Amino acid sequence: MLSDQNIFAGADVLVTGGLGFIGSALVRRLVGLGAKVTLVDSLIPEYGGNLFNIHDIRDRVNVDLTDVRDAVAMSNLIKNRQFLFNLAGQTSHLDSMTDPLTDLNINAAAQLQILEACRLHNRDLKIVFASTRQVYGRPKYLPVDENHPISPVDVNGINKLAGEWYHLLYNDVYGIRACALRLTNTYGPGMRVKDARQTFLGIWIRRLIEKKPIQVFGTGEQRRDFNFVSDVVAALLSAAASDASPGQIFNLGHREQVSLKELAELLVRMNGGGRYEVVPFPEDRKPIDIGDYYADFRKIETQLGWSPQVTLASGLEETLRYYRQHHAHYWE
Amino acid sequence: MLSDQNIFAGADVLVTGGLGFIGSALVRRLVGLGAKVTLVDSLIPEYGGNLFNIHDIRDRVNVDLTDVRDAVAMSNLIKNRQFLFNLAGQTSHLDSMTDPLTDLNINAAAQLQILEACRLHNRDLKIVFASTRQVYGRPKYLPVDENHPISPVDVNGINKLAGEWYHLLYNDVYGIRACALRLTNTYGPGMRVKDARQTFLGIWIRRLIEKKPIQVFGTGEQRRDFNFVSDVVAALLSAAASDASPGQIFNLGHREQVSLKELAELLVRMNGGGRYEVVPFPEDRKPIDIGDYYADFRKIETQLGWSPQVTLASGLEETLRYYRQHHAHYWE
Repeated sequence: MLSDQNIFAGADVLVTGGLGFIGSALVRRLVGLGAKVTLVDSLIPEYGGNLFNIHDIRDRVNVDLTDVRDAVAMSNLIKNRQFLFNLAGQTSHLDSMTDPLTDLNINAAAQLQILEACRLHNRDLKIVFASTRQVYGRPKYLPVDENHPISPVDVNGINKLAGEWYHLLYNDVYGIRACALRLTNTYGPGMRVKDARQTFLGIWIRRLIEKKPIQVFGTGEQRRDFNFVSDVVAALLSAAASDASPGQIFNLGHREQVSLKELAELLVRMNGGGRYEVVPFPEDRKPIDIGDYYADFRKIETQLGWSPQVTLASGLEETLRYYRQHHAHYWE
Repeated sequence: MLSDQNIFAGADVLVTGGLGFIGSALVRRLVGLGAKVTLVDSLIPEYGGNLFNIHDIRDRVNVDLTDVRDAVAMSNLIKNRQFLFNLAGQTSHLDSMTDPLTDLNINAAAQLQILEACRLHNRDLKIVFASTRQVYGRPKYLPVDENHPISPVDVNGINKLAGEWYHLLYNDVYGIRACALRLTNTYGPGMRVKDARQTFLGIWIRRLIEKKPIQVFGTGEQRRDFNFVSDVVAALLSAAASDASPGQIFNLGHREQVSLKELAELLVRMNGGGRYEVVPFPEDRKPIDIGDYYADFRKIETQLGWSPQVTLASGLEETLRYYRQHHAHYWE
């Protein structure tokens, strides 16, 4: 669909969190489509930004090391853009509990500042906001569709929800076209694997490559769904391209749902070796764990024609291959 | 119930927004029950604080003119308290749209700072948070119970919701006992009547006393419920006293629901004169109006034994009498 009618060719696109995992993959694809891309990233060490993520396209994008909390700088950066992919965020659930105000400032206040800048300086740009399944909290039914009650179990979930709703509100009240994708676990080359700040799958991959056992928390029976990064990039582009998306929330998800134990087994198999151990939940994680989660993503399938194309096995294989080759850029 | 077993006698109580409409009425009742009350209020001119609201009890309370955004001061103020009635807030829906960051800082960030202070310095205090029906947005069914979907239509609704959820989260994760009451339109002596920043009913009362016509926006058919301030104070005290309240959300409401036109007629009748006119919605209010709203308050009725005791007619009569006598302290 996008290749038939490439609205991104020559388009002026801003990507916040553009040195991060999903941001950099999106930027690479946009560059391939001929977009003029400016990416914003603060490179805060605890977050997902990593210059290596764009090493192959470094000379084809504008890199701006602004923090999204800098209202004045962001106000200038949004001017004259046609698209804003708003991906910058604090993603760690645990960090949101130990430093909740920082999470609020990035995931809520900075979002409101960006939208205010759009209201004042550029109401014509189109925004796609990266939200999270975390806003649903512990599922009351499965799979979780977009009508599922909202009930975040950590500060991160509350602040991401506020950030998401500001976007929908500015769409409804001011006509600034914006939509939100509620992402589930995303994985692939470029993800943060140094620790578990982005997803537990990151540290699993690192430990496997370091020949240490993967640690599965709890019973290992918790079921989850996973999207390979190229599928998430396709969803972001579809949402930006569609006239049906403004004002809407879309779940991402995958037909394959696996228990964490099954995932660990699959990962060990794709790695051709390694092992995992089931250990009790750490005290700080237990109260904010959400149990089973997998999404009903029929809305985006029906309305935007998106569905995940990459199987878990092939996605994990590609991810492992990447980190075996490039791990020095991610945790050394 | 409260008189049988007065847990507030001698109790160390902090009330934020204590010079405001509901705050000052609560403080007066707490003083009557023998509590040692410290009230916090920033007296920002656009908000509800008014020293005249405590003129009769001024020497029986500690007044601290701190802004709840001052994290260090609030951190000291919560120490050694047994109860916190957390009522300070930015209440204007319109102001939340023209200055959304201020709304966020007061209704969300300051709340998170207060809860952080409790987590670090006083986990034993019990908190009642004054939330708002605004978090529901435009009702999908009536009456609105606590399970109604959340869908705020303005920045104020989003930020109040975040503030509310931080409280419930700190209850669940850290065991800091907190609950939230979702208030509907509250009215009575001490309300802000200078303008419509607290509720449209305020400016109606002012205009009636000034012998100007009341302006009813839209069709005048929108139905709403109203609580007299003494009933809201009773609910706040019940919530603080009960062992069943922590972690819970309770709607307030009233059996009497009236259309805005009926309300205007009743107000004119109780005033013994005056008139109203139905005028189109102002442009800035239309997109954030919620239409019909009235609450299902059976949860608080069942669980805390609260129900509203004051009829709309008698509450309005008392309110009009108050402002005829004291209007010089409220709008001159």
